Amino acid sequence: MIDSELTNPSDNVVLALDLGGTNARFTAVRRDGEILARVRVPTPGHGSTAAMLDTIAGGFEQLRSGMSAELLPIAVAAAVPATISSATGVLEQLPNVPALEGVDLRAVLSERLGLKAVLENDATAATLGEHWMGASKGIDNVIGVTLGTGVGGGLIIDGKAYRGKDGTAGEIGHVCVEPEGHPCGCGSRGCVEQYSSGTAIVRMALEAGIDADTPLKVYELAKQGDERAILVFVKMGRYLGIAFSGLVNVLNPDAIVIGGGVSAGWDMFIEHVRREVNERAFRDPAERVNIVRASLGEDAGVLGAALVAFERAA
Amino acid sequence: MIDSELTNPSDNVVLALDLGGTNARFTAVRRDGEILARVRVPTPGHGSTAAMLDTIAGGFEQLRSGMSAELLPIAVAAAVPATISSATGVLEQLPNVPALEGVDLRAVLSERLGLKAVLENDATAATLGEHWMGASKGIDNVIGVTLGTGVGGGLIIDGKAYRGKDGTAGEIGHVCVEPEGHPCGCGSRGCVEQYSSGTAIVRMALEAGIDADTPLKVYELAKQGDERAILVFVKMGRYLGIAFSGLVNVLNPDAIVIGGGVSAGWDMFIEHVRREVNERAFRDPAERVNIVRASLGEDAGVLGAALVAFERAA
Repeated sequence: MIDSELTNPSDNVVLALDLGGTNARFTAVRRDGEILARVRVPTPGHGSTAAMLDTIAGGFEQLRSGMSAELLPIAVAAAVPATISSATGVLEQLPNVPALEGVDLRAVLSERLGLKAVLENDATAATLGEHWMGASKGIDNVIGVTLGTGVGGGLIIDGKAYRGKDGTAGEIGHVCVEPEGHPCGCGSRGCVEQYSSGTAIVRMALEAGIDADTPLKVYELAKQGDERAILVFVKMGRYLGIAFSGLVNVLNPDAIVIGGGVSAGWDMFIEHVRREVNERAFRDPAERVNIVRASLGEDAGVLGAALVAFERAA
Repeated sequence: MIDSELTNPSDNVVLALDLGGTNARFTAVRRDGEILARVRVPTPGHGSTAAMLDTIAGGFEQLRSGMSAELLPIAVAAAVPATISSATGVLEQLPNVPALEGVDLRAVLSERLGLKAVLENDATAATLGEHWMGASKGIDNVIGVTLGTGVGGGLIIDGKAYRGKDGTAGEIGHVCVEPEGHPCGCGSRGCVEQYSSGTAIVRMALEAGIDADTPLKVYELAKQGDERAILVFVKMGRYLGIAFSGLVNVLNPDAIVIGGGVSAGWDMFIEHVRREVNERAFRDPAERVNIVRASLGEDAGVLGAALVAFERAA
């Protein structure tokens, strides 16, 4: 499907992808943050590397062919659910898109599309997108958190993305909140991802005797007053607040912006998050930090990736 | 006592204080980091605010009177065991020097000594000192940790001190590592300070049936092979490593520099710290981070405070 809305066709655009485990979303983003065209295709899950690269290149071509000829793509950008090795440029640690493990996606995109290509970790991209056009616009020190299948994160420090020495910074989902807690796919135990992700909500619901295969179903039960489901969200929010309280003490941020699909359950967990932060963090930074919901929905990632491309192409 | 060593008397110096709960250490620091004079006086503990301010001003005067007349003090700097409110400038949260709670020490020093005055949190000052002249010289992204009566911390991000929105950043001692753990003076429970500080070592030793009133005595017992004392350091190092693993995942730093009196027990705890980081943090940032011992000893704080003064006076 193509949804193309050309408001100012003479502008330069970045072709920006947000690559998820289920869908790949392609957009044409103008320098002012306007999204001028969209294409969404299913991600071929656990297929071959070649099939995945064909899908990605094909999606970009489909986007480009549906755009006005007057639009000039100046770069291609991709938000990826991976660590991007700053040493080699290859993608690492992407359990949701294993076909791209070890692939230099930047080089492939650049060659296939004939454009400068930039990659960004998806949670960092979403944090940057919200900082550019959304909930944390104009705010200098921000922790961005994406609650989805896992728990992702990104950092804005002094107004800029902070990626750390190897580009791996921001892994807020893997702050330990329970030393002998539930085993985590990362190899540790008791990471906050094991209590505050969509996957964790379903698992904790099952442990409480609830038959629900999505976090949404657990949320709906909680809204209907199911005590067990309510307690799942108490636990989910409490552990997220414990992780936040440490980050608030260490980073003294202006804001924490929470996005991702699981943030839709906001009203069932946010009070528990805030209570832990208020009870555990120091007074000044606890009063300072504004814990808010992301405002761009699914567009945060493509906008953040596009922003990086505009900055690097400039 | 005065220990004055004038190697280049024509230089500008900063008069730099490191204010602890037991001693106040005054130094004259040259722009190249050389310490040219030293004075140490006992801190009047829990006396009046006036007595404390007289002690501090008197120490600076004693330092100045013992210095060569050719040395030109351009500023006074103090590393303080407190949060310095960036809004009001007053000192907050200093349990070890309660007489200065709510005092605008910067204004007092400036008026009494007739010099520009700057304040810095002591753990941030120590982190900056090590970054200027010590273990993390030339390294861009550093977590500094001071293991003393409590656990303090400071952050260097992109080569500069990171203080957060209110100047309270770096409170690494108050990362929660055990949600229902030992109550902390900060109001939370299970902060790493409750397991990895000197105070915690003595408490955990007592809990294990050891009669020791200082961390050094617990360390000496551990060195002699006392199993209970060894296990105190296993626990102390394990919890410190759990806190570090989260910080390594979130900040992907080049180095963690550990100083403070309790770092003297290095050989009894460091392997447990490193094990937790290696087992819990992601591979790339865990391999990246260099966990090293601070190299400046007691001079780190005055050097860091002096550095800030040189930068602001420039």
